Amino acid sequence: MDKAAQPFDPKDFRQALGMFATGVTIVTAQAEDGTLVGVTANSFNSVSLDPPMVLWSLAKKARSLPVFSSTTHWNVHILSNEQEELSNRFAKAGEDKFAGLDLDVSSNTAPLLQGCSARFQCRTAFQYEGGDHTIFVGEVTHYDSSNRPPLLYVTGGYALAARKAGPVATEPTSNIEGASYSENLLGYLFGRAHFQFVHGLRGTLAQRQLSDTDFFILSLLSVKQPLKPEEIVAHIAYTGVDISSNTLQSLVKRGLLEVLSNGAGLRLSAKGSDAILHVLAAAKSFEADLVSRMGELESAALRNLLKQAISATDPGLPKLWQSATA
Amino acid sequence: MDKAAQPFDPKDFRQALGMFATGVTIVTAQAEDGTLVGVTANSFNSVSLDPPMVLWSLAKKARSLPVFSSTTHWNVHILSNEQEELSNRFAKAGEDKFAGLDLDVSSNTAPLLQGCSARFQCRTAFQYEGGDHTIFVGEVTHYDSSNRPPLLYVTGGYALAARKAGPVATEPTSNIEGASYSENLLGYLFGRAHFQFVHGLRGTLAQRQLSDTDFFILSLLSVKQPLKPEEIVAHIAYTGVDISSNTLQSLVKRGLLEVLSNGAGLRLSAKGSDAILHVLAAAKSFEADLVSRMGELESAALRNLLKQAISATDPGLPKLWQSATA
Repeated sequence: MDKAAQPFDPKDFRQALGMFATGVTIVTAQAEDGTLVGVTANSFNSVSLDPPMVLWSLAKKARSLPVFSSTTHWNVHILSNEQEELSNRFAKAGEDKFAGLDLDVSSNTAPLLQGCSARFQCRTAFQYEGGDHTIFVGEVTHYDSSNRPPLLYVTGGYALAARKAGPVATEPTSNIEGASYSENLLGYLFGRAHFQFVHGLRGTLAQRQLSDTDFFILSLLSVKQPLKPEEIVAHIAYTGVDISSNTLQSLVKRGLLEVLSNGAGLRLSAKGSDAILHVLAAAKSFEADLVSRMGELESAALRNLLKQAISATDPGLPKLWQSATA
Repeated sequence: MDKAAQPFDPKDFRQALGMFATGVTIVTAQAEDGTLVGVTANSFNSVSLDPPMVLWSLAKKARSLPVFSSTTHWNVHILSNEQEELSNRFAKAGEDKFAGLDLDVSSNTAPLLQGCSARFQCRTAFQYEGGDHTIFVGEVTHYDSSNRPPLLYVTGGYALAARKAGPVATEPTSNIEGASYSENLLGYLFGRAHFQFVHGLRGTLAQRQLSDTDFFILSLLSVKQPLKPEEIVAHIAYTGVDISSNTLQSLVKRGLLEVLSNGAGLRLSAKGSDAILHVLAAAKSFEADLVSRMGELESAALRNLLKQAISATDPGLPKLWQSATA
């Protein structure tokens, strides 16, 4: 494990450094001839509160180094979650990086980008030797911030941050020897999250006299219809719910589903549409409440991760959302 | 928004700086008299690849500053996800921070902590002026890394990172007007993740002739037993599964549960323990496969976020894991 022989393998060393998560910044300046320059950097950090100072470092071979070395002012932009594209644009050489970008009025000569999580307008305080990089330390003359969640860079890729859920509990395990069933098992967490969500809809389901199985069938048809009985079974079989022809017959008898006369299968009746509409409205409302409790940042990260887990465990289900895979 | 009048309000300025996410490190050194020192710092960053150099900064008023200023070597530890407590310990003054910690053999005089995401053993290259902080630049002489997901610090609190899952698909909605059921609904994602996980256990469940309900009851008792029938119902009712006395009787009849003669309720028999052990082993194996597909980082973040969602939607279930709430 311990790597000592120098020179290090640059790729491996970079990978180890990548374990340190960072935000992503763009640092900008203006050359004496008026040319605007900007580079993506994750080497930013705060240094001092009094006087307010920040630092970042730039490769000595960077084309913009002469500009940053000779200018007296530069601006640091902490990129938001939605500025991944901007990060990529300023990470590449060539082209006019500022083309089409609206700029804010800056207190100094350096351009000031919009839509960031925070911005720091700086006057160069020091330039220091740092191996193949130059370290720039600036005194912050102006700053502002927004509540836009920041973009992250970790282990070589963009990421989102999610605040930790309090202290991690000790991991109690099952009380029978050899079994390690704990509340950290993803399978347990999926089930509990699922059943608690459905629990929140149970009042609405009961009002309409819908069982969980009825709910699955109606919501499936709300996305895709008409479907033949065997197609409905194929979509829902993975839930372990047994859909007998009785179940479907009963939904027809109750006037929630209609049998198409051309043999195309089953579709929602007006009554069925109305029923599932009410349940889905309750689901959206339950979800909105959940999102407001968890926060937008965490909810976005959770959706993102559940999709990864679903894709990793997909037993080969028929595609429900055609346009999402087109 | 734009803050210019100096001096800045330190709290507000710190909050703006907090929009830049960072990892968390502990930097250690040994004083001439043999005393070990260590501080938590998120001001770390990489500087140079050739020669390999990193930097961090320390408040001039820090009690350990004289040690770091006079020593020739220090070690940087990028903390893992599970080292929040260690981070807190080294962030506070006083007490023997190294008490009870196992140390690895270091190439230099500075102590080397265990369980980190990555470690960099450094020789001081430069010390620079940085306002109320001193900037330390070190040449990395040895390093190593693990695949432990790193701990993050962002907007004033600990966080986990989750890699972004590529571009977000267009959001198709339900085909009945007014309903907005889409694959971005958390309720749908929870259900699909849950049922796909249980689907992966279905072979094992079938082998032992266990229904989903049987599985819920046996795994509940594997964590907490004995339980009275009404306690079992209270734990499982939120799933919507109807546990009749028939269900429990049948498990007793099949020799999977035993009725305690003192009226204390039901517990797993040897046969029941064996059955749930096999199912839980299958669950652990399915989970291990999922984690290897998703990555450790994403799995840890997903667990964390599911716990937040579960806590936000908890209808007031009886606590299953006592020790976790003690």
